[in-house]
Amino acid sequence: MVSSRPMLQVAMDTLGLDSALKVTRQVYDVVDIIEVGTILCLAEGLGAVKTIKTLYPDNLVLADVRVAEAGALISKMVFDAGANWISVLSSAALPTIETVAKEAFSKGGDVQIELQEGWTMEKINQCKALGITQVIFHKSRDSEKLGPGWDPALLSVIKSMSDQGFKVSVTGNLNPGDLAVFKGIPVYSFVAGRAIREASDPRAAAEQFNAAIRENWN
Amino acid sequence: MVSSRPMLQVAMDTLGLDSALKVTRQVYDVVDIIEVGTILCLAEGLGAVKTIKTLYPDNLVLADVRVAEAGALISKMVFDAGANWISVLSSAALPTIETVAKEAFSKGGDVQIELQEGWTMEKINQCKALGITQVIFHKSRDSEKLGPGWDPALLSVIKSMSDQGFKVSVTGNLNPGDLAVFKGIPVYSFVAGRAIREASDPRAAAEQFNAAIRENWN
Repeated sequence: MVSSRPMLQVAMDTLGLDSALKVTRQVYDVVDIIEVGTILCLAEGLGAVKTIKTLYPDNLVLADVRVAEAGALISKMVFDAGANWISVLSSAALPTIETVAKEAFSKGGDVQIELQEGWTMEKINQCKALGITQVIFHKSRDSEKLGPGWDPALLSVIKSMSDQGFKVSVTGNLNPGDLAVFKGIPVYSFVAGRAIREASDPRAAAEQFNAAIRENWN
Repeated sequence: MVSSRPMLQVAMDTLGLDSALKVTRQVYDVVDIIEVGTILCLAEGLGAVKTIKTLYPDNLVLADVRVAEAGALISKMVFDAGANWISVLSSAALPTIETVAKEAFSKGGDVQIELQEGWTMEKINQCKALGITQVIFHKSRDSEKLGPGWDPALLSVIKSMSDQGFKVSVTGNLNPGDLAVFKGIPVYSFVAGRAIREASDPRAAAEQFNAAIRENWN
């Protein structure tokens, strides 16, 4: 079971390392996890992961590389760069996911499965059998059909997966005011991107997320 | 319909730009397409695409970023870096694929759908309706169940998709001797990685692929 309060993750999906560091230097000690986003990984390479972990050794660092293939090699690169967590797509073949997990666990790291459109509980349970318990619900930037807010049906899936022992994180244009709707669900982490990065005061924005977490999970 | 001979693509999945350039400088004028592989994109960032396109303006350059999400932004980054083609996962949500295609076509580029485990003809036809006709059959490095060689059932799917007007590329630990099995199928491109990169003479290896292509498609 997942215990205690949700953690706060800041997603660094910037087009360069410098613009990420402008934000991380202001928020690193008020967030739990720093995500080196897919965009930043592609913009700068995994050197960005190495720099961020070097600067912030006390934060968990997620390399959001969304592995689809070549799991062993990408996983090795990511953990050699110092990441704590790696993301894998739910659509990756199970042998790919297995090689990622094997490498991650051997380095004391962890694996997050990003639930894509069409994911199945069968596949996620196969991942669980490999020792993977982190899943991430991602409200897509590209898919518009979900509309604003969070679908009650989705909330009940999130609740059910938590009850089954998964550590469930949620992301998708979150603002502090959105968190109350998850009250009663032991969310593992809330991932905020633009709401922190693009705030006039990123640190204050992160603190607003923390206040909302304390208010709803006490 | 796809006409004429298959093209030859070399996949640069190296851990650094320099080790890629050691190979590309020897083969660029005997291959059609240079793929900046997922591994190299993650290792170096998309600067690797920019360097390779700058060095080899007459080659097609594929940025094998395997888009799963954030299609518009990644596509913009890739084409700004000078790529001609971008790869997208078959499991990406259709709105993601659509944003990738829109950006690609507006820059005169093209989009390759990587067929993952569980892909459906329905989804691929939806991609075709967006103007995407390139698909890639990838014999996974991680999945072992296919065994050596190419499954006749898979060959007939490849043939059928070619007949339907798709430009079909194939990859997965290919050697020149493997190409004959595709004879009679208008394969769009053969993608060779290790067989060229790790050959003692990469240029000679690429020329062996070209000889096999000429022999079987004349």
